[in-house]
Amino acid sequence: MTLASDRPVLHLTPLPGSPTPSLPADSRQRVSQFLQGLQDQICKVLAELDGAKSFQEDAWQREEGGGGRSRVMKDGAIFEQGGVNFSEVWGTHLPPSILVQRPEAAGHRFYATGVSLVLHPRSPYIPTVHLNYRYFEAGPVWWFGGGADLTPYYPFAEDATHFHRTLQQACNSHHSEYYPTFKRWCDEYFYLKHRQEARGVGGIFFDYQDGRGELYRGPDPQGAAALHSAQVGDLAQRSWDDVFELVQSCGQAFLPAYVPIAQRRQALPYDDRHRNFQLYRRGRYVEFNLVYDRGTIFGLQTNGRTESILMSLPPLVRWEYNYQPEPDSPEAKLYEIFLKPQDWVNWTADT
Amino acid sequence: MTLASDRPVLHLTPLPGSPTPSLPADSRQRVSQFLQGLQDQICKVLAELDGAKSFQEDAWQREEGGGGRSRVMKDGAIFEQGGVNFSEVWGTHLPPSILVQRPEAAGHRFYATGVSLVLHPRSPYIPTVHLNYRYFEAGPVWWFGGGADLTPYYPFAEDATHFHRTLQQACNSHHSEYYPTFKRWCDEYFYLKHRQEARGVGGIFFDYQDGRGELYRGPDPQGAAALHSAQVGDLAQRSWDDVFELVQSCGQAFLPAYVPIAQRRQALPYDDRHRNFQLYRRGRYVEFNLVYDRGTIFGLQTNGRTESILMSLPPLVRWEYNYQPEPDSPEAKLYEIFLKPQDWVNWTADT
Repeated sequence: MTLASDRPVLHLTPLPGSPTPSLPADSRQRVSQFLQGLQDQICKVLAELDGAKSFQEDAWQREEGGGGRSRVMKDGAIFEQGGVNFSEVWGTHLPPSILVQRPEAAGHRFYATGVSLVLHPRSPYIPTVHLNYRYFEAGPVWWFGGGADLTPYYPFAEDATHFHRTLQQACNSHHSEYYPTFKRWCDEYFYLKHRQEARGVGGIFFDYQDGRGELYRGPDPQGAAALHSAQVGDLAQRSWDDVFELVQSCGQAFLPAYVPIAQRRQALPYDDRHRNFQLYRRGRYVEFNLVYDRGTIFGLQTNGRTESILMSLPPLVRWEYNYQPEPDSPEAKLYEIFLKPQDWVNWTADT
Repeated sequence: MTLASDRPVLHLTPLPGSPTPSLPADSRQRVSQFLQGLQDQICKVLAELDGAKSFQEDAWQREEGGGGRSRVMKDGAIFEQGGVNFSEVWGTHLPPSILVQRPEAAGHRFYATGVSLVLHPRSPYIPTVHLNYRYFEAGPVWWFGGGADLTPYYPFAEDATHFHRTLQQACNSHHSEYYPTFKRWCDEYFYLKHRQEARGVGGIFFDYQDGRGELYRGPDPQGAAALHSAQVGDLAQRSWDDVFELVQSCGQAFLPAYVPIAQRRQALPYDDRHRNFQLYRRGRYVEFNLVYDRGTIFGLQTNGRTESILMSLPPLVRWEYNYQPEPDSPEAKLYEIFLKPQDWVNWTADT
């Protein structure tokens, strides 16, 4: 894949043997409390926005330790389906796929908590949106991960710009290197290789943020090579509180990033053509989540709560053999412009 | 998972170092010709059965070598969507996932040909059906694989029995051990672990059949243990022609196994309740194909023709959070009886 920006991404190598910054005694309580509060706030505002329906909660327990509260809205006025999940789990060992990235966690008990959200609006003019923020502790290491990304059907460049700028502001209040790095990582992660398409217009994505200054640990070979060639001194010494504050800013940026888009598109009239294309494009969401998404596959293969994991799947979906958008149509424009990584923050009509 | 029958499955260990039986000079032509003929015959009969629509062909070439002909029916009277694909490809090396089972093929060029089919009927009373037969040659080894399985929505035990008995007859004309072994392997393979459900009522499934007498190479640990404890002398010396004839019988059994079911259910009236449940259950088909199916995942990850691979996905699908069938309903009966491995060949109302 090509990336929109030629701007080099900074990669920060932790000093060899540098320990993960120390934790406050109440780290788990603080993150868990923040994430539950975020779930509460998001559900409240989305229910007000929808007007017709609210979220129904299922609390669940996990046999191996922990549990969660899944909240679903069905058949709303704006949201055909929406799920906002909180979970907090612990156990004896992390799976091998995570230990590859954090070998220091091997042989240790773990704690993990997170919030994840997917909204499938009814109108093809309102984009689907996804958010996830998560936190791990295991033996000597801890880290935060997450992000948010937008998937339009009949897209507006100003919506993509608004979404990205809002997340950029949240990141910039902590360091100017965060947004460009996490934006690129998002473009790389939410990519359907078998379709050679981005999932949508992206947003931000990050993982393994532990204050040691390694901003990027993504799949791009260029990125991996650069990982050992760049450092930013002041980012290599962030405390646990610094990283948690970054995650709080990103989480709190979700509603201002998304709600105005839903509001300004909700009244646009649409017909069967738009609806059919939306259902077809939702198929890509299913393909991404079941074929590529690490969280989904990991959850399904390790005895997670299936109904909560697959809450991300759309309520109604279409597949059509060999569909091709008509040249110069709005549908073609989605593929040609919006499903390729773009510099949305600086987008202008002349770009 | 539990298996319906306590009957021990026979497993046959090839003699150490025993070479794969020799090939006729025209092996590839003969298999390819048979599979193309099977595709032709199936498409012809299904189009006659449907009455309203026929199959449209896309011929395609593969850059690395070979190609195929994909045939799709859309919006038929009986078949909402159906795909019947033939492909014949070659290249420099097989992927690692296959070499694990056939290390003798490492470092050799390969040839692979196959037919695959998935039909999604419009009526919830007609089951979805899948067929695949395939053939590989690579260096010193060759083998056949494939099978057929049935996925009902509102099921009839007599349909499951008819489908299984027809495939059993095809297998029995070659050896009585084939059907029970391949039936069990099918139940193991078409299983959704995250749902703890069978995909449907099964059928037959086999792989790595090369005349050396190893009938079973499935995932069940009990099966793997038994693999080294049982032999049937007369099956350990099958020629290439013997195995090819078995595959031909199985392939030719497809139409008599499936068509009578579609015929006798096509006129049953149904309403929105049935249709909604069908669309919901089709979600399981998507989950299986994208999360578990080796052929689909392998194809998507190795630059296969995406549109032909994903032709197996249903035209319209629903997901619903936390759906549970009503007790004692026809929907509950599907889960309780039909989505568990059963001895369909010997099924009676009293079973």
